[in-house]
Order: sequence, then C-alpha cells, then structure tokens
Amino acid sequence: MRRLTIADIAREAGVSTGAVSYALNDKPGVAPGTRERILRVAAELGWRPSSAARALTGGGAGAIGLVVDRPARVLGSEPFFTHFLSGVQVALQAHSGTSLMLQMSDDQEAELDTYRSWWAQRKVDGVLLVDLRVADPRAGLVRGAGLPAVAVGPPQEAWGVPSVWTDDAAGVAQALEHLHGLGHRDVARVSGPEHLLHTRVRDEAFSRVMEHRGLRPGILHTDYTGDQGASATRRLLARTPRPTAILYDNDVMAVAAMGVARELGLDVPGDLSVIAWDDSPLCGIVRPVLTAVRRDIEEHGRMAAESLLLAVAGEEVPDRRTGDPELIVRGTTAEPRGTG
Amino acid sequence: MRRLTIADIAREAGVSTGAVSYALNDKPGVAPGTRERILRVAAELGWRPSSAARALTGGGAGAIGLVVDRPARVLGSEPFFTHFLSGVQVALQAHSGTSLMLQMSDDQEAELDTYRSWWAQRKVDGVLLVDLRVADPRAGLVRGAGLPAVAVGPPQEAWGVPSVWTDDAAGVAQALEHLHGLGHRDVARVSGPEHLLHTRVRDEAFSRVMEHRGLRPGILHTDYTGDQGASATRRLLARTPRPTAILYDNDVMAVAAMGVARELGLDVPGDLSVIAWDDSPLCGIVRPVLTAVRRDIEEHGRMAAESLLLAVAGEEVPDRRTGDPELIVRGTTAEPRGTG
Repeated sequence: MRRLTIADIAREAGVSTGAVSYALNDKPGVAPGTRERILRVAAELGWRPSSAARALTGGGAGAIGLVVDRPARVLGSEPFFTHFLSGVQVALQAHSGTSLMLQMSDDQEAELDTYRSWWAQRKVDGVLLVDLRVADPRAGLVRGAGLPAVAVGPPQEAWGVPSVWTDDAAGVAQALEHLHGLGHRDVARVSGPEHLLHTRVRDEAFSRVMEHRGLRPGILHTDYTGDQGASATRRLLARTPRPTAILYDNDVMAVAAMGVARELGLDVPGDLSVIAWDDSPLCGIVRPVLTAVRRDIEEHGRMAAESLLLAVAGEEVPDRRTGDPELIVRGTTAEPRGTG
Repeated sequence: MRRLTIADIAREAGVSTGAVSYALNDKPGVAPGTRERILRVAAELGWRPSSAARALTGGGAGAIGLVVDRPARVLGSEPFFTHFLSGVQVALQAHSGTSLMLQMSDDQEAELDTYRSWWAQRKVDGVLLVDLRVADPRAGLVRGAGLPAVAVGPPQEAWGVPSVWTDDAAGVAQALEHLHGLGHRDVARVSGPEHLLHTRVRDEAFSRVMEHRGLRPGILHTDYTGDQGASATRRLLARTPRPTAILYDNDVMAVAAMGVARELGLDVPGDLSVIAWDDSPLCGIVRPVLTAVRRDIEEHGRMAAESLLLAVAGEEVPDRRTGDPELIVRGTTAEPRGTG
C-alpha cells in the first residue's frame, strides 16, 4: 500500500504517463475510450489526487484550522471545547475529505503566528476564530491576509468575516428571571476572563437586568478554573448582606462553589442558589443536580464549520445565529430562606 | 499579505523565475552573488516553502495525525484528551512548523478510512494511535501502508511501531495496597470499555492482586460516562455483602458514585471508599476531595509526539515508558466502618 503514482496507473492501463495526466485532469489529448480505461484503472487502484498537488494547483489544502488559546488545565475540565470540536467534525464529515488542523496555543502572539504560517504554507484553506476578544488583533490579520475565516461570537462588522453566534444575553435574562421569580434580590455573577467578548456580553446583560430592577449587580472575574471559582465564591459569601444566589460562567466553577458552600455550612439551595453556564454531564452527576443554562454547542460547531466551508468556496456567507440558550431548572435553585 | 510566489521574488530581485527556483532549491545554474541576493530578497519578503510543494518533493506534509474514536459526550467530560493534546503541542512547538491534524470519529471503520486517506493524500507524515484495542486492525494498517506511527499503550511487538506507555498495573497495585492497609477486603472495580487494551491491563492487575490475597475481584464494565458509572455503582451497592470500596476507571464516574452514595444515605468515606483514576481538577473541587490515581498525561502526549517525529525522520525509535502512576490520597478513602 505505498503511495500510488501516475506511473503506476500508466503501466497498468498500458498508456503513457502523459495520457494518464490528461485523463485525470480532464484535459483534451487522449481518445475517449482510452480516457475511460484510464479512469477505470485509476479507480480500481484507489487513486486519489494528493492534497499537496491540489494545493499547488489552487485546489485547496483540504483542511481548516482552529487555534485554541486557553491553557490545558482550563480546557481539560470544560465540556465546551470537545463538544464544539464534535460539531465541527459533523460538518467536515458531510464535506468528506476536509480535515481539521488544531493548535493549542499559550499566548496570543503564538496564535497569530500559527494563522500566518498555516496560510503562508497553504496548510489550511480557512480558519475558525473562537474566544473573540474585546480588542482582537485577529480581525486585522484575517482581513489583511485574505484568509477565509468565520468568527465564533457576536457579529463584528469591522472584522469583514461572517459570524456564528448565540444570544447569550437571552440566557442571562432567563436565569435572572427565574431567580427573581423565586424571590432572590441579592444575586451575584462569577464571570470568565474580562478580555473575552462573550464575557463582556454576559456581564452587560447581567448589569442591565439587575439595574433595571433597581438591584446592585456584583460581578467577579476569573480564569474559569475551579480554584478561582471557589475563591470568588468565598469572597462573595463573606459579604454583608450575603448574596442568596450566584450565576457562574461555567460548570466547573459552579461545582466548586457547591463544595465551598458545604465547607461554610451553607445549604444549597436553601442558603444559596447556584446556576451553571453550559449544561454538561458534570451538572447531572453532582448532588443536588445543577440548574444550568444550556446551549447547543455541537450545533454551534457544526454551523461554524459549514459557514467556513462556504466561505472557502468563495460564497457570500451571512451571519448565522443558533437557537437561544435555555435554562434547565434542577436542584440547586430554590426560594431564599426567610422569604418562603 | 496574499501568498508570495517565486515570480514576486524574481521581480523584486530583478532576475528570472528560473534563477529564483535554482537559488531557493540550492541547485547549480545561478552565480553565487545572484544566489545570495535572491535568498536575501526572499527572506525580506517573508518567503517560506509551501507545505504543498514540500510534500510533492518528498519534504513531508509538516503535520502529524490523531484520530480519536470516542463520542463527544465522553470526551467532553474527561480531562485525558485535552491534557494529552496539550503535551503533543509542547513537542510540536519545539519542532516548529509541524501541525496536528485531528479527527474525532464515530466508529472504527471511519477511523481506518481517515488514516488511509490522510496518508494517500499526504496530509500527514505519521500518526499517533490512541485507545489501543484488544484486537486492533490499525496494527495491520500501519504495517501494510508503511505509515510512520507511535502506539500509545503497552508495547505490541506485532505492530511493528514504537510504543509510549505507562505501567497501569502499578497504579492498580498502589490503590489496592492503600485500601488493604485501611482494612478493606470487599473491593470492586468499575472499569472502562472491555475492548480497550488498557482496560484489560488494569482488570488483570486488579484480579491478580485480589486473588493473590484470596479475595474475590468484582469488575463491572462501562462506557466511561457518569450515567453508566452511577448505574454500576447502584448494582454494586445492592450486593450482599456490600463492597466497602470501589475503584473507578475515570474521574467522572467516581463523582457520579458520590452522588449515588448520598442518595442511598451512605457516607463517603465512612460507608464507602472511592478512588478515581486520573487525577483532575474535578477531583479537587468535589467534597470530600477525591483520592485518585495520577498519571502525568501531558508528559505522555509529549513523549508520544517526540517519538513520532523521530520515526517520521526515519530513526529507530525504542519503546518508551513514562513515570509510574501515583496514588494521591485525599478525602474519599478511610477505614471501613466496624473495623476501626
């Protein structure tokens, strides 16, 4: 099973390599009967054009690229990343032959270098941009390089690339509506990194709803790890008055918060209601089971890859919005004690 | 920042494209001074040989491949995958310019097709093989195709490729030694899928130690999800006599078991000791904090990628063994009640 060459096909079909080349590239210069025989022999031998040859002749690299700029200790505990990848694979499988080039980077400069070198070396035909930042140098990079791209996040006209996004503000509003209905007034939010665009979108939605109700919004930023989720929770629970409910920006921090509450002798949900963002298997295996904001992350990945494949093909691609997030009410939210 | 061509360099250097080609490919046919000027201009313009061109001229695709044949719902909740990837990236960064091609597959046949097509199309220079199976068709595939590969798992002479592996049996022995020392005699194991080689290695180590002590080994197999971990736990806890300790094959199932114990009114660790396999952030955020078998998964990924890069370069690569797993004793193991 060594690699098949045009010479192998020529030998098997009893023709010149030139004739094989004409036939495979659908060019004139070979008789119809001969062309047919060559194509049949090529198919029998399992011939496929190499992606190297296709890339050189302008046929594309047959791969899209994704750089993830988060440390492994964060990625390893969050379900978002693998579910997103899974959705990307669904789209790529439907578009058979396109592969995913993945890079985990440790800083922003390395991420930019990866995009530049992938494109310069024709290793990818386009890229997915995740974790959009408030001031994001990738906008200029993809625009300047003419590199096909899809931004996974709120539409950004200045980027000049299509977006695939979810209305995170709707998820925040639902969670706060649920808590308000239960009687919670002192609600805090333990948020992700401040430089991420979707953190800002959720923070703003949280502040808007709280202020609209005349309530004081309390937000603490973290790096998404359980450790920072736990310490933010400790700081919030040391306040007077103590918040009666906290909305977390991932599942891991919400689970960590339940451990902190237990250590402080506080009952969840009696003394503290907890809501996780992004429902995950983890939310279902802890006790009590976690109330969570659910998004269809696989759909997100699938739509992003589909949009990118269209953009690579040179089509005009509109911004696309996935279904709204949905609050899944389970065991960690209840009326605050003393208001029942 | 469109792609640079040989014609751009020729124009800028004031020479023919042929001269540029000779100079860049280090071939005779161009005067030393001209060659020098061409190389300087090419460097100034940021010229890099395209990977397509390199692959066609035998210079390699500049990428290695990894196919993961596990559903996203399993991958999304386990830390192994992303930590392994993170280690792979460390090795690739040191070997700058090599990228990772990733595929998540949903069945074994699709996985084999991916390897075949990557190699036939020269998209990768070699592959990492994870989740080795008891009867694994990939052995024949890589041998037959001459595709450079590294097996991540116990050495398999018949594969004809180097392995990177950890002595899982040592981890099982440590966990059982710890439980035995606490006084546990009725210990069960909730294991991964039976067709995986490392499941078999751990199962055999578990049975060997238990039988050596004259104890009855009880093993239930799962698909690694929290759901199956929980139902296996329910079945074990319904037995008479009830096991006083259970060793789980990942962290998610161990966390799910703690929820089941709570539902049944059993105290962890008073009524049931629990040990997770693969320590993770999750083990540290639940209460009580989980006793776990720790392996250096990033080191594992790094060594696997390093071995593969050497194999791609045509070197003889020996099997390499990582450090032994280590039991991290925390809050979920204690003397069984009534023996204290």
